[in-house]
Parts: sequence; C-alpha cells; structure tokens
Amino acid sequence: MDSITTTRAEEIIRRACDRAADIGVAACIAVVDAGAHLKAFSRMDGAFAGAVDVSQRKARTAALFPLPTGDFGQLVAGQQLTGMELTNGGLAAFHGGLPVMEEGRLLGAIGVSGGSAEQDLAIATHALATQGAD
Amino acid sequence: MDSITTTRAEEIIRRACDRAADIGVAACIAVVDAGAHLKAFSRMDGAFAGAVDVSQRKARTAALFPLPTGDFGQLVAGQQLTGMELTNGGLAAFHGGLPVMEEGRLLGAIGVSGGSAEQDLAIATHALATQGAD
Amino acid sequence: MDSITTTRAEEIIRRACDRAADIGVAACIAVVDAGAHLKAFSRMDGAFAGAVDVSQRKARTAALFPLPTGDFGQLVAGQQLTGMELTNGGLAAFHGGLPVMEEGRLLGAIGVSGGSAEQDLAIATHALATQGAD
Amino acid sequence: MDSITTTRAEEIIRRACDRAADIGVAACIAVVDAGAHLKAFSRMDGAFAGAVDVSQRKARTAALFPLPTGDFGQLVAGQQLTGMELTNGGLAAFHGGLPVMEEGRLLGAIGVSGGSAEQDLAIATHALATQGAD
Repeated sequence: MDSITTTRAEEIIRRACDRAADIGVAACIAVVDAGAHLKAFSRMDGAFAGAVDVSQRKARTAALFPLPTGDFGQLVAGQQLTGMELTNGGLAAFHGGLPVMEEGRLLGAIGVSGGSAEQDLAIATHALATQGAD
Repeated sequence: MDSITTTRAEEIIRRACDRAADIGVAACIAVVDAGAHLKAFSRMDGAFAGAVDVSQRKARTAALFPLPTGDFGQLVAGQQLTGMELTNGGLAAFHGGLPVMEEGRLLGAIGVSGGSAEQDLAIATHALATQGAD
Repeated sequence: MDSITTTRAEEIIRRACDRAADIGVAACIAVVDAGAHLKAFSRMDGAFAGAVDVSQRKARTAALFPLPTGDFGQLVAGQQLTGMELTNGGLAAFHGGLPVMEEGRLLGAIGVSGGSAEQDLAIATHALATQGAD
Repeated sequence: MDSITTTRAEEIIRRACDRAADIGVAACIAVVDAGAHLKAFSRMDGAFAGAVDVSQRKARTAALFPLPTGDFGQLVAGQQLTGMELTNGGLAAFHGGLPVMEEGRLLGAIGVSGGSAEQDLAIATHALATQGAD
C-alpha cells in the first residue's frame, strides 16, 4: 500500500467521532495521505468553523514532519526554531495531529480540533488504535 | 435549520461516491455549510490529488453565489465579468458545484471533481436528489 | 517503489540539461515526487530567474493532474474551465510539464522552463525517454 | 563573478549530501543565488517532505541577510525584533543556512534541513569548506 485508503481514512474518522461524542467534544477530524493531501474530513455538528482549518493544518503538519504535532511543537520551542511554524504555508505546533505509520512507513496523518489540546490528542490517539482497543 | 447537518452531508457524499463508482469516475466530493466552511469531504481511491482543491472550490463557489457553478460561469463569461473568478480567494466558474437548498433557504453546497465537467455535474445532481430518486 | 528516487530524479535532470544545452536553451528543470513535493532542481547558468517558479509549477501541475501540462491546458480552454488555473495555488496550463509514470502508477513529474513552450516540452520529453534513446 | 554558477552549486550539494549520509541524516539541500532565487536543490531519499520548504527558506534567509541563519536568529531574539521572521514572506531564524561569500562579496547561500539544527549547520559548513578540507 502506497498511502492510506479511503476505507481506512473513513474508519479512522468514525472512531474519532465516536470518542469525541463520548467525551462531549464537537470536533473537526481531517485525514491526509502521505503527501499531505486531504483524504477524508468530517465536522461534527456544533464544531467551531475555525476548527476546520486547524484540524487540517495539524494533519498536514504530522504528514510533513512525521511525529506527533505536540512533540514537533516542543522541538520548535526547545531549539528556539524561530519562524519554523511559518514554513510550509503555516504549521500547527501543538497537540492533536498524529502520523499514521505502518511497518515504519508513513501512510498519512490525522488532525483533530475542537476540544482542548489534550482532548484533541486523546481523540486522535483513540482513532489510530487497533480495533481491538475499542 | 440554519445549515446542513453532518448526517445529511455524509449521506450526500455517500450518494455521490456511489454514482461516481457506477460511471467509473474516481472523484473528490466536498460539502460545505451555508457559510462556505467545509462540513464533510471524501477522496475516492485513485482520484487526482489536484481534485481535492477543485472540489472544495466548487462547493465554496456554489455557497457564496448560490447557483450551479456552471451557470455562474456562463454569467461570468456572458456579462464579461473580467476578474470575477479572482474574487473570494479564487472561484471555480464551471460545472460540478451545486447549492443545497431547502424551502428557498441555503443550507450549504456540494462540489465534485474527478471526471469531465459533465460527469462531475451528474454526480452532484444525483447526490442532491431525494432518496426516492435512487 | 512508492515515489521517484533521488538517483532517478537527478538522472532526469542531467538528461534535460544535456538536451537543453544541445538546442541552446538555458533552462530550469524541476522534478517533484508523486505528492507534488520538490525532489530535485537545477537552474542552468543564464536561465531567467522567473523560470524557477514556472518550472516548479509545471512539475506540480503534472503531478496533481497526471497528464502533459499542454494537454491539461487544452482541456481547461476547451471546456471553458474558468478559474481552474487558480486552483491548487496556481497551475501552469501550457507545455513543459510531464508526469513520470511507471507501470501505470504516478512516480512524480518533471517541469521545464526557459525556452519556448515547444522547446521546454522537447527537453522534458527527452529527459523521460529511456536511456537507449540517447 | 556576480553570482554562483550551476557547477559550484551542484558541487556544494554533492558535498552536503556526502556529509549528511556520513552522519546518518536524510536532508534537503537548497542553494540560492545572490538574488535569493533557487539555483539547485536535492532531497535525499527518506527526507521529510516538510524539509523541502525549510531548507529553501534557510537559504533564502542567508542570502537576504548574509550571515549564518543561527546568528540572525540570535539577533532577532536578542534585540527583540518582534515580527522580523514574518518579513520577506517568512524567514528561518535558526541554524542551517549560510551565505556563500567570495572576497567579501555575496555569491549566494545554502540551506540544509533534515537533522537537528546543529547537524544541519555541520552539513552546511562542510559543504562550503574548500575542497582541501575533505
């Protein structure tokens, strides 16, 4: 498999929405492919319009720099990489984006926005967990 | 109802994907709300990466100027509205975008990209038809 | 192979530069991967600075819509796709960009700028021909 | 000589790639001319897609403000030049970009991205060292 499939992307979004509903968050969830192009997206009823862009930016950031966006943010802050967040059309250097890896290869990424940074991360983490984790 | 619901948007996308598959087109389908903000999106496997932006732009155009994007294009050409397509961050003035109306009010819009302009329009039209139309 | 390798990209650029020199053109040559991200680039001495962007835009266009950019341009003009060239951050709908295909799959794309549209296309075509074509 | 030649730019990129491989970094290397326009570029297999833009931004920063980008970053932080990194379309004010000087004149600049800031700087420094330094 070269990149994430539509079936896999929609399964990830369904799992994210379920968890978001469980914890009372109205979220936007974006899934991009390995080239950082949007594959699937859903905005739950009640989610802020501003979260549309944030969720996609998190997913794009996690595909362009394949690590959790929160870790990327700590790297940027810790090494004082002034201006790093301005590259690539604007990056989201805080929690809520995660790369989707398979056997060490990048398949794509998820980005969640709508709750607190910790809630967004929890939703994204749940969405990528294996089905047995339900 | 002020704007399109997630349930309705995903139903529209499902219907669009079914019809696209029927006619052998790998499409991107975007649904935006009445404020032209993305509500749901799906890229079928095999759809060109360039169609991601085109489909969203069609949906956005049909929400900002609530008529079929092909009609909007004819208006732009016929009235020599030079530069109109440059407004609003760039508009798609050709077939494939349709407003979603209910009792005369704008709920949102759909944009389809992946096939010819005529195929994209046929997919969008089918997606918005009432369920009895299947 | 998921996408074009550095070795392949640099071989393509070397072949393009050789042909450009043969026909007296100072060109910019860009090679992008399947996700339309830059893989390799060279600007020959004497090439216009403005060709840097044009060559990359051609390569990006041919990766996002995997057909020769000249054919893409005819499609845009023939179907009156007003505004299509504004999508995806601006597309180059004229000769000089070609997708790099292998067994039906997209590996990346080349974009050449510096000569006439026909010269740019000839350089790109030569660059992608098999080695025996030298 | 007004600006860097293609031959010199490609020699710099070759040296940078060799050193990056030696220290186990998959890097993007960009070389711009004295006018900050791209002259040559290579992305090593495995380098993050996000490093494409970062490497070019470092090179551009080091051509526009001809000093090491890390020094530029300290200047920005030390003198509280709030918003300086927002100028010129976005600057990279951290290690990895170096001007290419000859007899006091600016010929161009190199930008490296892919490793830590220190690794990127080490690769750029090696690339610009005289051949006898190998």
